[in-house]
Amino acid sequence: MTKLSDDARSALLENGWSMVEGRDAIHKTFQFKNFVEAFGFMTKAAIWAEKLNHHPEWSNVYKTVEVTLTTHDTGGLSELDGKLAAKLDQLA
Amino acid sequence: MTKLSDDARSALLENGWSMVEGRDAIHKTFQFKNFVEAFGFMTKAAIWAEKLNHHPEWSNVYKTVEVTLTTHDTGGLSELDGKLAAKLDQLA
Repeated sequence: MTKLSDDARSALLENGWSMVEGRDAIHKTFQFKNFVEAFGFMTKAAIWAEKLNHHPEWSNVYKTVEVTLTTHDTGGLSELDGKLAAKLDQLA
Repeated sequence: MTKLSDDARSALLENGWSMVEGRDAIHKTFQFKNFVEAFGFMTKAAIWAEKLNHHPEWSNVYKTVEVTLTTHDTGGLSELDGKLAAKLDQLA
């Protein structure tokens, strides 16, 4: 898997993603109206994650979904993370 | 909402739930075969959570689902947590 380019990283950071301290990983907090909206987003995202065979580390508390993306095989951010991040932004 | 009885707490702790340090909350780690199984469990659990109007704090990394239950209105474990915990055990 190809490492994420500097340009692609910059684009993500400009789009609300932030670097995770101490890891080559990105994080974003998604807020929804309520639990059904939050879990609806997760359900759509889960199907895409499985299609891409690339899965998020994520948590949910009521209407908030916290997502962290990285690629274990690459030891850091890869093009797959860029792809999944763009898809999540689109779904939200 | 009624606080969780001592007997009900003991039953949960005997069933693989553990107390969260520093909070009146319970935690359990659920392991599945793969992401689809893990998220399938979450989907069933989400529908029950919404039906009970009581939602977990939870996270997922691939085939692992970590669940924490507490009742904010009660300031600790309530009967609703016991009910949701039993349902999650049944669904897993």
